[in-house]
Amino acid sequence: MQSTLPYDEPRRRGRPPKDQSLPGAPRTRLVRAGMAVLTEKGFGAVGISEILSAAQMPKGSFYHYFDSKDAFGLTLIDAYADYFARKLERWFEDRERTPLQRFRDFIADARAGMARHDFRRGCLVGNLGQEMGALPEPFRDRLSGVFLDWEAQTAKCLKAAQAAGEIRKDADCNRLARFFWTGWEGAVLRAKLDRGPAALDEFAEGFLTLIQA
Amino acid sequence: MQSTLPYDEPRRRGRPPKDQSLPGAPRTRLVRAGMAVLTEKGFGAVGISEILSAAQMPKGSFYHYFDSKDAFGLTLIDAYADYFARKLERWFEDRERTPLQRFRDFIADARAGMARHDFRRGCLVGNLGQEMGALPEPFRDRLSGVFLDWEAQTAKCLKAAQAAGEIRKDADCNRLARFFWTGWEGAVLRAKLDRGPAALDEFAEGFLTLIQA
Repeated sequence: MQSTLPYDEPRRRGRPPKDQSLPGAPRTRLVRAGMAVLTEKGFGAVGISEILSAAQMPKGSFYHYFDSKDAFGLTLIDAYADYFARKLERWFEDRERTPLQRFRDFIADARAGMARHDFRRGCLVGNLGQEMGALPEPFRDRLSGVFLDWEAQTAKCLKAAQAAGEIRKDADCNRLARFFWTGWEGAVLRAKLDRGPAALDEFAEGFLTLIQA
Repeated sequence: MQSTLPYDEPRRRGRPPKDQSLPGAPRTRLVRAGMAVLTEKGFGAVGISEILSAAQMPKGSFYHYFDSKDAFGLTLIDAYADYFARKLERWFEDRERTPLQRFRDFIADARAGMARHDFRRGCLVGNLGQEMGALPEPFRDRLSGVFLDWEAQTAKCLKAAQAAGEIRKDADCNRLARFFWTGWEGAVLRAKLDRGPAALDEFAEGFLTLIQA
């Protein structure tokens, strides 16, 4: 699949995608619909018919594009990981902001993203991670790998903040990045459960208190 | 149901339970089996037949004890909440330890509990909270209520630690307790995904650093 799949926002500018990744192409529509539905409900609770219905595609067309629901799930993880890595890159590389401001910007954007969907949709990787006890084993490495990637991007931003004097000098930024993602996934879970931003706000505030110089 | 249901440990001493809560009684066996299976796999992925099989009970016997899978789920939440509230009470009321030591003891016990099941089983409330987008609406208040209860018990222990000079004087212990449970659920999720204790250890260490005087 294309690595420029849009998720919840207008398609980016740049090299024109191949046909199959045009927003209206069937496979892309399935992936977009899958991400929307699975960020809300997870993997196990969603049937192929619900995904087809969300994508406004006819019954029976799913297996024309994917060999199995599992294959579809792995594709969704990759698409979501890619979408999210670009999002992190966009925030963390914004040279007009200090590194710690960039990190705050990302948090504010993630919060706004949840609010936009009335705190119904969470994190695909968190949802599937929680369901791992009931998912095929190949999902595990893929999901772990996504967290490692996000943590590496975050650690880089935190190190830049440390170099700029915004974060305590004695902090281990790799550790802090892991701490952040561990707790942030818990906060997203809780925000969905409570249908409100309190857990996100309180976790972010606590984390920022912990790290600041 | 009885409020003294054992989960993963020997039955406590005290007033003898009614027949239906004896460890071998069918309804109790279903609840115990349900907690074991659902802490690993969540609600949506588990069918009634799997629960009956884990409880070593005959097909078709489920509806003799529960009206529906949903009613069973709500019973499990109550049983787990009760089991866990007693666990917290046991650790947090241990007068032979300082308050902060009690908090550490609880964390060590929770970690040992996950290790005992090879990091396959997590938190029932976290699992179902994550699945809330696909669960019946009455589950939401019940799950939120459990978190509020755990947070209140934890805040009380942290306040005692603060009074004993073990926690920063300016800390808001109610907020810290919420921060802890938000992040801890994320750590449990991650420990299950990684099948190891690293996320638990790192989150606990970060949190203890944050709060200590």
